[in-house]
Amino acid sequence: MGKQTLGRRARLRAQTTADIKATALRHMAEGGPDAISLRAIARDLEMSGSAVYSYFDTRDALITELINDVYTALVDHVEAARDALPADDVAGRILAWATALREWSLANPQGFRLIYGDPVPGYQPPAGGPAPEPSKQACLGLTALAAAAWPYAKAVQDDNCTWEAFAPELVGTVREAFPDLPPAALALALRLWGRMHGLVALEVYGHLGPQARQPGDLYRAEMSDLIRSLALPDGDRDDRRHRSQV
Amino acid sequence: MGKQTLGRRARLRAQTTADIKATALRHMAEGGPDAISLRAIARDLEMSGSAVYSYFDTRDALITELINDVYTALVDHVEAARDALPADDVAGRILAWATALREWSLANPQGFRLIYGDPVPGYQPPAGGPAPEPSKQACLGLTALAAAAWPYAKAVQDDNCTWEAFAPELVGTVREAFPDLPPAALALALRLWGRMHGLVALEVYGHLGPQARQPGDLYRAEMSDLIRSLALPDGDRDDRRHRSQV
Repeated sequence: MGKQTLGRRARLRAQTTADIKATALRHMAEGGPDAISLRAIARDLEMSGSAVYSYFDTRDALITELINDVYTALVDHVEAARDALPADDVAGRILAWATALREWSLANPQGFRLIYGDPVPGYQPPAGGPAPEPSKQACLGLTALAAAAWPYAKAVQDDNCTWEAFAPELVGTVREAFPDLPPAALALALRLWGRMHGLVALEVYGHLGPQARQPGDLYRAEMSDLIRSLALPDGDRDDRRHRSQV
Repeated sequence: MGKQTLGRRARLRAQTTADIKATALRHMAEGGPDAISLRAIARDLEMSGSAVYSYFDTRDALITELINDVYTALVDHVEAARDALPADDVAGRILAWATALREWSLANPQGFRLIYGDPVPGYQPPAGGPAPEPSKQACLGLTALAAAAWPYAKAVQDDNCTWEAFAPELVGTVREAFPDLPPAALALALRLWGRMHGLVALEVYGHLGPQARQPGDLYRAEMSDLIRSLALPDGDRDDRRHRSQV
């Protein structure tokens, strides 16, 4: 078998894998996660059942890869937005992450749902979770934001927290990456996560839209308030602008 | 037909209605919202299909009533927690509402999911939404919290907001109940909603548990930070306690 043939086969295989995943996401959009079925995908793609099974052994394997894919895409997106700003623009990088999270989530509601929504009925994630790598990447990314904010935030944020408050594996990962970080900064990282998630989850699921005509403005106001609460050096730039209008 | 007979029939009917709803929630817990089916409920309760249909014309009618029920239970629960504290304890009442929201959500994950999670596949809510009354009640409750906080919070919170930022119906409801409230306080009410929702949604869906061993502490820290950000008169009571331990 020549090298070129192998390349073509690999490309075809990659294309079919992508088609299977795209079909799964479409079925999920139409009928909920329960509608993801290898048989239905085979039918849609005019493949035999056994051909589909040569790509994914089980429906669970497909779902695991879907979750991993969308979570990786999300983390890559928010990290790229963060990295577009210099490392010393702590407030700007937090805002960039938060804004990119909202944009990605609104553009990919099915992906958001796979990561953060109802569990797929009957799905058994592998030990270690469906997406350990992007989960870790997201966690370290948020911790990096909290770590950059901590020198300013520690004067105004709670500092009563111990490492016992967290899972040992998480503590190991975080302390390896940020040896000087106190546990309260890890708590802040998890709280940042929750705070960025709240309005986005309400908006993606259609709760905010009917009430707020400009949910983007509402989210920006919430994130400005977050920046203020961290006492960041330029955290009041939005604030000042707002105040001059009052 | 005697009055007593009517009473007994009405009681039986209420009991059967409750059984149908409880069975629907159980099916949802086992197989996702898609598993809610009048036929499956009839089978489980050993009723004929037509008997079940004499209680609920359609599956959608049943789902609407389920959402309305659980949303009403949630709002009653958070309001009772808030009302256990005097009206002038603004910080205490916000914390009570937030804590009760978390408790109810963890105790009723299926209910949380029906209100805030993935839409039930194929379900068409009636015009005006599945649960207009408890939605309005929740909205007014949150607005009342924001209104009570606003005299203190306005000095430190964004004030650049107009009524155009909100749906006219919401504006009408809110201005009728709180004639002196500025639009920025309504924005604050929606942001309170998002902030209370974020960590709870992550926890209910199992994202927080593996990382944080004491998610309740994390939520309390986040809510203490919220109270501080509103500059409430006794908003630093937790803060003071914490600081004395540092």
